[in-house]
Amino acid sequence: MLHVNENYSKISPTYLFAEIAHRVAAHEAANPGTRTIRLGIGDVTEPLCPAVIEAMHRAVDDESRRETFRGYGPEQGYAFLRERIAEADFAERGIAVSADEIFVSDGAKCDSGNIQELFSQDARVAVGDPVYPVYVDTNVMAGRGGIALMPCTKENGFVPSPGDFAAQGLDLVYLCYPNNPTGAVATKGQLQAWVDWANESGALVVFDAAYEAFIRTPGIPHSIYECEGARKCAVELRSFSKTAGFTGARCGYTVVPDEVFARDSSGAKVPLKPMWARRQTTKFNGASYIAQRGAEAVYSPEGREQTKATVDFYLENARLVREAFAAMGYECFGGVDSPYVWVDVKRPSWDFFDLLLSRAGVVTTPGAGFGAAGEGFARISAFNSRENVLEAVERIKKAL
Amino acid sequence: MLHVNENYSKISPTYLFAEIAHRVAAHEAANPGTRTIRLGIGDVTEPLCPAVIEAMHRAVDDESRRETFRGYGPEQGYAFLRERIAEADFAERGIAVSADEIFVSDGAKCDSGNIQELFSQDARVAVGDPVYPVYVDTNVMAGRGGIALMPCTKENGFVPSPGDFAAQGLDLVYLCYPNNPTGAVATKGQLQAWVDWANESGALVVFDAAYEAFIRTPGIPHSIYECEGARKCAVELRSFSKTAGFTGARCGYTVVPDEVFARDSSGAKVPLKPMWARRQTTKFNGASYIAQRGAEAVYSPEGREQTKATVDFYLENARLVREAFAAMGYECFGGVDSPYVWVDVKRPSWDFFDLLLSRAGVVTTPGAGFGAAGEGFARISAFNSRENVLEAVERIKKAL
Repeated sequence: MLHVNENYSKISPTYLFAEIAHRVAAHEAANPGTRTIRLGIGDVTEPLCPAVIEAMHRAVDDESRRETFRGYGPEQGYAFLRERIAEADFAERGIAVSADEIFVSDGAKCDSGNIQELFSQDARVAVGDPVYPVYVDTNVMAGRGGIALMPCTKENGFVPSPGDFAAQGLDLVYLCYPNNPTGAVATKGQLQAWVDWANESGALVVFDAAYEAFIRTPGIPHSIYECEGARKCAVELRSFSKTAGFTGARCGYTVVPDEVFARDSSGAKVPLKPMWARRQTTKFNGASYIAQRGAEAVYSPEGREQTKATVDFYLENARLVREAFAAMGYECFGGVDSPYVWVDVKRPSWDFFDLLLSRAGVVTTPGAGFGAAGEGFARISAFNSRENVLEAVERIKKAL
Repeated sequence: MLHVNENYSKISPTYLFAEIAHRVAAHEAANPGTRTIRLGIGDVTEPLCPAVIEAMHRAVDDESRRETFRGYGPEQGYAFLRERIAEADFAERGIAVSADEIFVSDGAKCDSGNIQELFSQDARVAVGDPVYPVYVDTNVMAGRGGIALMPCTKENGFVPSPGDFAAQGLDLVYLCYPNNPTGAVATKGQLQAWVDWANESGALVVFDAAYEAFIRTPGIPHSIYECEGARKCAVELRSFSKTAGFTGARCGYTVVPDEVFARDSSGAKVPLKPMWARRQTTKFNGASYIAQRGAEAVYSPEGREQTKATVDFYLENARLVREAFAAMGYECFGGVDSPYVWVDVKRPSWDFFDLLLSRAGVVTTPGAGFGAAGEGFARISAFNSRENVLEAVERIKKAL
């Protein structure tokens, strides 16, 4: 008789976006003829840039002719893409990451969920609070309990310190900077402290840099590998979703350096790169050729210019939102090197959500939905048209 | 201190294709100027059909304009594709599968590797021998040992019977028909026996129908759901890879019927559909929009005609191979409702491989590479140009 994996029943179902949808639907039914503006979404709104579109059309044409047809590609991703990534995302910033340490995938969500498969079931896991729920849920589904929550608060600048949690004997720590949902960035010193701690304690840092392209402030690290020693204790997740609008096209990558390792039960070092390679070759069949050709074009001179312009556009949206709330006397975080503005709403998160929905017809995301430490905050997303952002700001000003 | 998942070290690394590549390279180095013909590959060679190419170009154009841009899609896949699948692959054959029981993915390999996550670690797993190694490896990586091998032999027509293995108390059985590597098909009676056994014993059948499009013989089931009671005890994996040449584009799907269940530790029934939905929404972010639009076009009148013509082309290749070997006195299996011809080579698999490589410059796949019961056989693939197949057949005739 087949039994289920009962760990699945231990996940707290995420009612956040379902609850938002429910309240928005009720509001719209009660207010026919009004237009709701959604500043709650984490998905991009701008189309793929021309350089990417052209590359994808060429890739589709490759698939139409026997001479240029590409079937199964390397599970790790095509060298044409991995070499561009190694050069543009790392070498040009003086960071040592080689093309064969890069594993192209269909997105950072999958990688962030799958990486825990490499580790023992008794690994002690820590995540920030508030948090992107995938880190927690995938560990719970794999049977790991007792996940440590590290509060990310105004007081710590939304960046926890390893010293505050080292006593818990952590093995696996997920860090995401620029952060979703708080929009906070981590300084090099803050990340170096985590790297030093991980190297001292034999832990691993999973560094989610999905929002890296939004960093504009000089000195803020774009990669964990800017920190000394990180190649021994960190894997890094990257995505073309927010960098270049690939949320529908699906492409991301994970860096697993040659030196990074965990231990076997005898205490011997086991390199993680061959394990991740084995995981991907066994359970994955490569990202779409068309998506990989599109991602390659992100690194062309035109692609870089065009994707930067789109990110700049979202950052300007973020500035408008942030300044509007600041002018109304709300304390705001993020929105500078991030598409998310994290607003201290001075009341319970859901009360603020209802207030803005009913008075302004504007949808935000209640901070409490990302964890207990998000209570009292709202996440406001810059992924929208300028027109919607401007109108939302005007409506909010009148409503609050 | 972080420890690794030591189950990863229990997998037998698959040296098969690496060993083939090694021997081919040595042969080519020793015989400069000769041309090797590869009849060993499992990847398609024909380009995507015009209907699919046109749909993909349109989808790329959708991604180029704000009004038609698609970002994150439903993790389960777009309704436009799931509804076409439900209609064309099931309703038209009189099979009851609804669109909301279909989960679109980036390919059947991922799904066949991920499905085991839903089950308890002590599930007793059975696979055919010879076998597609993903079924075995993904279970071993998850900590399941003692996987039962069910020999697929001439005597049982390469379809094991549940009665021969029921005493082992199996919980989870992987069946693949049309089979890779043997090319065998299962009759409705044979599949019904497995379904009846699973319903009686509380087991689950994972039915891999990736090669379904090659079935031409009337009466051979295209889906496990043609069997009575299968909706309670089977999930089915499908792929556009072999059906329509999507090995590089990446799209497949899994059917999880509303009625299919396993048990919790108290013995209560737990439906698998919400569990698979939870798995996919947590660890997957949807298949590429472009691939899904391409897959939708497979079901258009032009798409159906064009993809059928390509499958017919491969089947004609298979016929040429099969008849050539039969004419030389070799017993052949498969190659009728399958792209693979399984030849009894009357000597050890690797001896035959070396013989054909050295005398004819033709690469085949040694049956022993797929499992002990494959010893003495060769898998010959129909995925090639007609010209290569004809020349390979002529060379083989001279060599043997």
